[in-house]
Formats: sequence, structure tokens, C-alpha cells
Amino acid sequence: MKIDQSGVLAVSQTKLSLYYKNVTADVIGPEHGITKQQFDELAQKTRPAIAECNRQRKNGAIPYRDLPYHKQYPSQVKHVAADIKPGCENFVVLGIGGSALGNIALQTALNPYMYNLDEKQRKGPRLFVFDNVDPAQFGSFLDWIADKLDKTVFNVISKSGRTAETAAQFLIIRQILIEKLGTDGYRRQVVATTDARSGTMRKIADEDKLRTLIVPDGVGGRFSVLSPVGLLSAAVCGIDIDALLEGARAMDEKVSREDFFANPAAVNAAVNWHYYHRGKRISVMMPYAYGLKDLSDWYRQLWAESLGKSCDLKGSKVFVGPTPVKALGTTDQHSQVQLYREGPNDKLFTFLQVSEFQPDIVIGPQPAAAPELAYLAGQKMSKLLNSEKLATEYALLYDKRPCMTILFDRIDADAIGQFIYLYEVTTSIAGLLFGIDAYNQPAVELGKEATFALMGQAEYADLAEKIKPVAQVDTAYLV
Amino acid sequence: MKIDQSGVLAVSQTKLSLYYKNVTADVIGPEHGITKQQFDELAQKTRPAIAECNRQRKNGAIPYRDLPYHKQYPSQVKHVAADIKPGCENFVVLGIGGSALGNIALQTALNPYMYNLDEKQRKGPRLFVFDNVDPAQFGSFLDWIADKLDKTVFNVISKSGRTAETAAQFLIIRQILIEKLGTDGYRRQVVATTDARSGTMRKIADEDKLRTLIVPDGVGGRFSVLSPVGLLSAAVCGIDIDALLEGARAMDEKVSREDFFANPAAVNAAVNWHYYHRGKRISVMMPYAYGLKDLSDWYRQLWAESLGKSCDLKGSKVFVGPTPVKALGTTDQHSQVQLYREGPNDKLFTFLQVSEFQPDIVIGPQPAAAPELAYLAGQKMSKLLNSEKLATEYALLYDKRPCMTILFDRIDADAIGQFIYLYEVTTSIAGLLFGIDAYNQPAVELGKEATFALMGQAEYADLAEKIKPVAQVDTAYLV
Repeated sequence: MKIDQSGVLAVSQTKLSLYYKNVTADVIGPEHGITKQQFDELAQKTRPAIAECNRQRKNGAIPYRDLPYHKQYPSQVKHVAADIKPGCENFVVLGIGGSALGNIALQTALNPYMYNLDEKQRKGPRLFVFDNVDPAQFGSFLDWIADKLDKTVFNVISKSGRTAETAAQFLIIRQILIEKLGTDGYRRQVVATTDARSGTMRKIADEDKLRTLIVPDGVGGRFSVLSPVGLLSAAVCGIDIDALLEGARAMDEKVSREDFFANPAAVNAAVNWHYYHRGKRISVMMPYAYGLKDLSDWYRQLWAESLGKSCDLKGSKVFVGPTPVKALGTTDQHSQVQLYREGPNDKLFTFLQVSEFQPDIVIGPQPAAAPELAYLAGQKMSKLLNSEKLATEYALLYDKRPCMTILFDRIDADAIGQFIYLYEVTTSIAGLLFGIDAYNQPAVELGKEATFALMGQAEYADLAEKIKPVAQVDTAYLV
Repeated sequence: MKIDQSGVLAVSQTKLSLYYKNVTADVIGPEHGITKQQFDELAQKTRPAIAECNRQRKNGAIPYRDLPYHKQYPSQVKHVAADIKPGCENFVVLGIGGSALGNIALQTALNPYMYNLDEKQRKGPRLFVFDNVDPAQFGSFLDWIADKLDKTVFNVISKSGRTAETAAQFLIIRQILIEKLGTDGYRRQVVATTDARSGTMRKIADEDKLRTLIVPDGVGGRFSVLSPVGLLSAAVCGIDIDALLEGARAMDEKVSREDFFANPAAVNAAVNWHYYHRGKRISVMMPYAYGLKDLSDWYRQLWAESLGKSCDLKGSKVFVGPTPVKALGTTDQHSQVQLYREGPNDKLFTFLQVSEFQPDIVIGPQPAAAPELAYLAGQKMSKLLNSEKLATEYALLYDKRPCMTILFDRIDADAIGQFIYLYEVTTSIAGLLFGIDAYNQPAVELGKEATFALMGQAEYADLAEKIKPVAQVDTAYLV
């Protein structure tokens, strides 16, 4: 039990730890493992990065670090959630990237699998998150929702409001709501999460008199899940956002430690950085829990967009960045493990393992015809799941593949808050080790401009000309 | 219109083509592109592989090639489907790997997004596929289904019946059904898809007098989607399995061609093989269509399990195998494209692009406050989606990243059948180019044995001893 920086008692009831023995040379040998001396060198290399990360935080340069301590955001979120909930049977997030992945991850982790289908299992409205512009997908949803609009709240999330996908979805929904429910009805069924003062969505929200929540300044989409961006859908769907933030605060104490070997974000970042430079450029995150599967998708954005950067090295352009891969145990044992064991030794594995599942299930008796299944009968399903995790890890270690594990006591809001904060700070420290800016995303601009050009925006006519050869199919290469 | 090998008219109404101009040196330069000469060398290298693949097929060594021509399987499947459908509101597949991924892919591609939630949008029962042993996930489902068992049919799919995950799920469901519905009720609600003659599940099915369908001999799980393994859930859920098989037959004609440049599987395999050896060892499949997203998951198993193999090269062990990665456009533009453009040039991209969407959606008018959104107003959503695809491809080509595209006229059963068969034969030819056996999966055995050991099977006691150090957490490495 610790007093955190805001003077609030941070009580983390659920343990979450990083376990890294199975990357050591003691376990997988010196060719692929990390020796004691290499770990000491990593500690030395990483200490200044920890200090720099703490310094940047103190200077207000990375405001995502303070989100767990914010008083107003959660209270505003709870206020809006309480306002929405009566009569709301469907809650629909319109957002993409950082305005969707955190929402999805929280929902999958902290609400039941059958949430949307089973009224008895949910404490809030059904949740839908649309992070694409596929007309077949969105059209199927619009068909279904057509006679339920007055019981449906749409949360459009975009800091600028110019993100083409979210803007397109919003223009469609806005038109439908105004047509079907009138302007007042439209206002009642929409919440905009956007910039506090400026931008396209702010202008629309002000003109249309929409309820709004704030996307904080200086917090990139991929670091925004603990802001109103991620918290509103969670609160509306009955997730304990206080426990989530409390978990993040508890992890903050650990990931701020200057002592490398006591800081899980530092060790995590250093091991990842180390293996990247040893040719293991693929970073597989493989939860052994269905509930955690979308956290690896959230991590996938955090990791790729933060660390995939070109930089100058002595005057020449260097491309860096590990490729994050999401996998799921046990499912992907029957899909990817053949490659993971016998393919190139070019991957670092991070498992997520959960000790205790609620509810657990006992496996039924074997039929008389199949005595060979007796070993399963009467055992808990969680024992099978976790045995498969250990078995897979053992098989990978047998072939000298480095493995780490994030150990969860159980899956609850506290643990998920810890996990999120652990990986956010891991990313910050990794960015410092890689020597890149973890907070920008310059390479997505050209694609955005090219989209404007292809959609016929006059000011991008020159670019449209340049794209023409790509846009026209050359039948000589069609087979 | 062609007469196929079985004398049946193979009429492919929907065009599906591979477009490979954007891997050529003409587009991305010689450092990362393939020159005319290199393509000629690839053709020369690949021609014997095409011939060998055709020879193996003729000799009956790769029976998956003949599945589209089988008369009995689809007729048995339709018979069972017709038998099941009356009164069936929920259809539940218990399977994993190749006994799940094809089923999921067909459903996502060919049925509406809201299928399970909207009775009006479906022509069959709800579909659930369980390919994991997570007690929280499965428990949530069991809670919901408890009072619907007599309207629910379970399709357990396992050739051997010894796959631990599927066996565990089945023992749980079997116990519940017998308890709640009696032996007759249990029989009525289960279909087993398994080996024709032997194995654990065949013994159980015979003793319990279950309806069965056949997992064909010599067809590995990852090549089995066009057999009863994948066809039953599709047929039950209203998918046109005849059109699916017809599409596969139409593609068969193309992928059997000895002329390299006229054979899309050969070109596809050769380009993938070529880039692997040029250090682009990550193969990203990125559909621009939500409906195709689980086909990339199906591909991911096909590719990884078939091509991830160690082999002997002049006496020393070599590990080969590209790492398949699934992505989704436009969603992952806001997650992965920063890395794809500015990270290492170590990836080959394959887009899936769809010309025509049904239904399409027109984007609503821009609000007065946001004239900057005028470029979206009144446009079709599919135009935005496909503009984003071209824009992303343009941005990747700008940075010399090689891109191919599979062009779909539209998404229908015919096109999906073509796609599946194209990638299966691509995998066979790639296996021959890599010089490995694409049809086995030796590396998954150790994990299976280790699971038996950890679950307490007496005959694996020695192995259990060896695993102990992995199973015990060493707190010195816990942070």
C-alpha cells in the first residue's frame, strides 16, 4: 500500500508482474539468451533513459503520465455516463486507432464474452465500436439499428474531427438522426469527445450544441485510453474506471523507479531493444486468456506507431522499429507455433498469463469408449489453459526462443490499469533507447493527403496526378 | 466459361485476380523491386514446382486438390444441414486451428456483420465457433445457452478426437446435454465431424450413436475448409456451398497452368519466396473489407504452419519460414502504417481490394460549421474505402515497399472459393520452392506432450520432471 503522488492511497489489490528469467542465457544459452554481463550493460544503458523519462514527465512533456491522477476527467465521464444510461440500450463508438482500440480492449477484458447478446450478463447498454468505413459492415449495423435510434447513443471520438473515417461515419449518423429524431433528438443521442477549444469536431459540437468530453492536449491517440477517450464507453458499460485508474497509479510507482532491476517498464523496454539489435525484430504478444486478446491489439498500435520511425544516423536515413504481432493462446498453438518453433529465431515472445479465472469450469467425465481422455475428466479448464501455456513456453525454450511473461493474478480493472500503464511507460523508455520520437507519426500524413487527392479535393490535384499510375490497373500484370 | 476436370461446367461469374505490378523494379526501383530478368529467373525456377505440384495432385498425394470435385461431401453436408435446421436457433462449432479458422472466415465473409444479433438478417441459426479453452469465455456462453440447449446444435470437429482443447469442450457439452436433455436429446443436438473409421472421436460417435460427417484422409486441417469440416456450418448458416466449390474449380484451372505468367498461384508463391530471400521475411495480408478480415487469419495458419519448417542444408539445420501478419484496412492505417512506411523495409504487402459493395452507403452532408468536410458529402463510402487503399499503397510505394493486390469484383461465395483455392495452391508451390514439406507440423508435438505431462498423465512423468524449472516461477526474475 503506497501513498501516490497526488496524496491518494494507491491500493493495488491485484498483482501484476513481469517475469523475464526465460530470456536469460542460463535458460536458453548464450547464442540467444541474455547473459548476466549483458543485463548489467542493459541496466547501465537504460538508467539514463529512465531518468530522462521521469524528467520529461516532470516537465509536462508527456502528459499521458498524469492521466491517472486527473480528478476532472473521471468525474466528467461519470456525469455524462449517468446522464446517458437511462433508456440507453446501445452505445456506439465512432472512432479509429487510438479512439477505438482502447475502448475495445477494455470491453473485451472486463465485460463478459456474451455481453452484447445476453441482457442478464450486462450492466449497461450493448457496445459497438466502428473503426472502419466498410459499407457492408456499417450497412448491416444501420439496418439493425434503424428502429432503435432513440435508445442508442453515439460517441464520436476525434480530436481534430478531420479523420476521414470518423468524419464519414459521423456525417452518416448525423443525417439519419436529424431525419428520424429531429434536431433535438440528434442532440440527445450524441456525445462528442474532442478538442477542448478548436478543430472541426469542436466547431460542429458547438454549433449543434452537443454534449462534449475532452481529448486532452498533448496526449496522442495511442496514449489516451485512460482519458475520456477510453473511459466513457467503459463507464457506460459498467466497468469500474476508478479501479482502472488506481491500477495505473500503483504501476506508476514501479515504472518510475530509477533502479533498473526494480522497474518492470525499464526491463521490458531494455529486453525488447536488446533483441531488436540481435536480429529478433518481431515481438509477439500472446495472451493465454480470451479477455486479453484485444489488449494485444491495443499494444500493437502503441508499439508500431511509437517505435516504427526512420531516423538520421551519421547523415544517412535508418529505418527502425520492431514489428508487433498479436497471437492468442491456445488458439494460435494450432496456427503459429509450428512457425514459432521451427521458423527463423527472429522473435521475442511475451505471454500474458492469468492465475485465477472466474468462473472456472470443470471438465466432464470421459465416455467409456475413450479412456484416453481420462486425464481431462474432472480437471479445471483453467488448469488445461495454463498447462498449455507452460507447455508451449517449454517447447519454445527447447528451441532457444526467448520468452517473457506478464503474470496476472486475475483479470480485473485494477490489473488492466496496471498493464496499460506498464506498456505505455515501456514504450516511452523504449523510444529513448531507440533514439526516436515515440510521440509523433509523420509517416501517416502522405496517405491522408493521397486520400484527399483521390476523393477529389481541388487543392490536392497535383498529388492526384502523381497517384494516377497506381490507381490505374495495368493489365499486363494481372493474372 | 470452362469445362472442368470432372466434366462439370465451371462458371465463375465473379472475377478474382492477382495484380503484381507494384513489386516490379519499374515501380519501386531495383534495390527493392523485382527486375524483368529476375522475374524470368523466377519463372524458370518455379516451372518445375508447378509441374511437381500437378504431378503430386495426379498421384493422389495432395487430396485437398480434389475437394472441389467431390460429389458426396457436399451432398452429405446438405443432408445433415437440412436435418438440423428446423428448430435450430444456435449452431456451435467446437474445433481449433483448421477446424475453426475456415468456418469463421466463411461466416465473416459471406454473412452480414449483424448476423448473430439480427434475426431479420439471417437465413439460419446464430453461429458460434469456440477455438479456445478459456473458462471465462466459455462460461459466459454456457450461462447464456443453458435454457436454449434443445434449440442448439453442437458440431464437434476433430479428426482424431485427441486434440485437448476440443476434447475438453466436448466433454463439458456432452455432460451438460446428457444431464439436461437425456441421452436421446444429447444425440439429437450433436454432429461429429471426424475420421471415417478410427480414432477417439469416431469411437465416441459410434458408441454414442451420433450423426457424423467425414474429415477426409490425407487432408490436413489447414487445407480442409472445402471439406465437411468447413462446409457444414456454412451450409447451415445459408451460405451457397455449391458456388463456393464452383469458385474453387474455376481457380483450379488457373493454378494448374504450366505457364508461369498465367498462373496466379505460381506468381504469388514465387514473389513471396523471392522476397523472403531478400530479407523481407514478414508477409502482411491487409484486406480493405471487414468481411475478408478472417480470411487473413485463415491464411495466417495456412502460411505459418505449412512454410515454417526447419530443414537440413548440407548437414546443418536451417530454420525457414516467412511470418504472416494479418492487418485490416482502413483500421490499421491508424495503427501499423507508420511502421510499415518508416520501419525496416522487411515486409511484403498483399492487399485485398473489393470493387463493388452491396449495400453501399452515401455519406451525409457536411454541417455548416465544417465546410472542410464537403469533400466527403454525397460520396459513396466504398469510394472512401478504396481511395484509402490506393492512398496507402501509394505511400508505401513512395518508400519502396513492395505491394501486391488480390482484386475481387465483389465478395460472394464464388470469389471466396477462388481465393481459398488460390492460396492453398500458392502454399503448395511455395513449399516446393522453399524445399520443405508443406503438409506436416512436427514442431507442435512437443507442446502437446508437455501438456499431457502437466495435466498429470502418468506416461509423461519424465517429461513433467524436465518442465519443472519452467513451471516454477523464480522470484529473482520477477519485477
